[in-house]
Amino acid sequence: MVDLFDDERMDYLLADEKMKIIQSPTAFSFSLDAVLLANFASIPIKKGKILDLCTGNGVIPLLLSKRTHAHITGVEIQERIYHMAERNIALNHLTEQINFIHGDLKEMLPVIGHSTFDAITCNPPYFATPATTEHNQNEFLTIARHELYCTLEDVVKACKLHVRPGGKVAMVHRPGRLVDILTLFRAYNIEPKRMRLVYPKQGKEANMLLIEGIRDGKADLKILPPLFIYQKDGTYTDEAEEIIYG
Amino acid sequence: MVDLFDDERMDYLLADEKMKIIQSPTAFSFSLDAVLLANFASIPIKKGKILDLCTGNGVIPLLLSKRTHAHITGVEIQERIYHMAERNIALNHLTEQINFIHGDLKEMLPVIGHSTFDAITCNPPYFATPATTEHNQNEFLTIARHELYCTLEDVVKACKLHVRPGGKVAMVHRPGRLVDILTLFRAYNIEPKRMRLVYPKQGKEANMLLIEGIRDGKADLKILPPLFIYQKDGTYTDEAEEIIYG
Repeated sequence: MVDLFDDERMDYLLADEKMKIIQSPTAFSFSLDAVLLANFASIPIKKGKILDLCTGNGVIPLLLSKRTHAHITGVEIQERIYHMAERNIALNHLTEQINFIHGDLKEMLPVIGHSTFDAITCNPPYFATPATTEHNQNEFLTIARHELYCTLEDVVKACKLHVRPGGKVAMVHRPGRLVDILTLFRAYNIEPKRMRLVYPKQGKEANMLLIEGIRDGKADLKILPPLFIYQKDGTYTDEAEEIIYG
Repeated sequence: MVDLFDDERMDYLLADEKMKIIQSPTAFSFSLDAVLLANFASIPIKKGKILDLCTGNGVIPLLLSKRTHAHITGVEIQERIYHMAERNIALNHLTEQINFIHGDLKEMLPVIGHSTFDAITCNPPYFATPATTEHNQNEFLTIARHELYCTLEDVVKACKLHVRPGGKVAMVHRPGRLVDILTLFRAYNIEPKRMRLVYPKQGKEANMLLIEGIRDGKADLKILPPLFIYQKDGTYTDEAEEIIYG
């Protein structure tokens, strides 16, 4: 059994009802962004090491474990949310494949070493601007959404430090930050190689982007087919449904 | 009457049969890229000044003239193709609205001044790598397609020099160069603001990108809905047909 605290609840991670995840509306709940990133990232399948930065309640490691036998490490700076992640791997009997570290991604060198991971994933805070109202209301959500404890540059720098040469770094972010992302990836020798844009529906602007770079890779970006989430009638497109429910 | 030389032929520019354009399969023929850029670019409508770099046979100024009363200047480095452009404005009775300059875009400062244009368009050479076989076969096409006379950085630098603060720079290019484009735009203070990706059809990778930046603009990129050119049956999509045939 796993304990639940405060307003935490236990949800099914995906519709197949095989995986469960502890969430909290006031501390951390996973979003479609995490599900899409876990589907998009190129990861080693049979063995190897994967790192997930800004791991939150561990949703990305949990989802990746369905695709790979590689070992997955997650790093989370907020202690309460780190404890949710710890309980989530116990709940799903994944303590052998996944481990979590409570700490600051800027200070991981002595803990996990450099150039040691085959692939890194990250769903970082999206907003560069200082949080205003929201900040005062809810510290957990503010830290997850705003660049208070780490900037985009801190994240990219950490990816460069911990991924091996030729290893892959995948991130989900907002289109408004694309120029920042591509310039930082290149500045830290993680050459952008694959990008996919996510549109809520046909005729709308993109509201999410998935990007993957290769450390020390050769310049040549491929832009994959667009992903539409909803059909005109508001139901999921076939492709979104396949990604979300597997 | 306008003379035709060598293998030149006179085509209808668009299906409405109101505009004609002189082309040559061995020197310069316009492509879909130019048509999409002329449709995508934000330009002043009632008055103002527009500059088209790497203008070729003048296809973009001709197309823009259907949308605007602003004056349009085109710059072309290849003398033979510049002469095609000159005859194209005569042919379409547009000598008052459009003028062409035969010269190198890197040396336009004394000719057209700095910060003088409200909008700049450019369909530059796409390939950074030195031309090999093709180079030896056809000099005209090689210069139009490869960065022999100007690099992407030369083009962006010229855009920065000639556009006014707050003015717009629109370009069509290949997805493989997106990182180069965005980093150069930002390096020269042309902040990327609007991007549209063009896909040959659903399920395929993007093969063209349209990008627009604003000189001294604030960082915030919008990614417009994707444009698909062909339907499954190989005919144009409604939107592509509307752009191409008006």
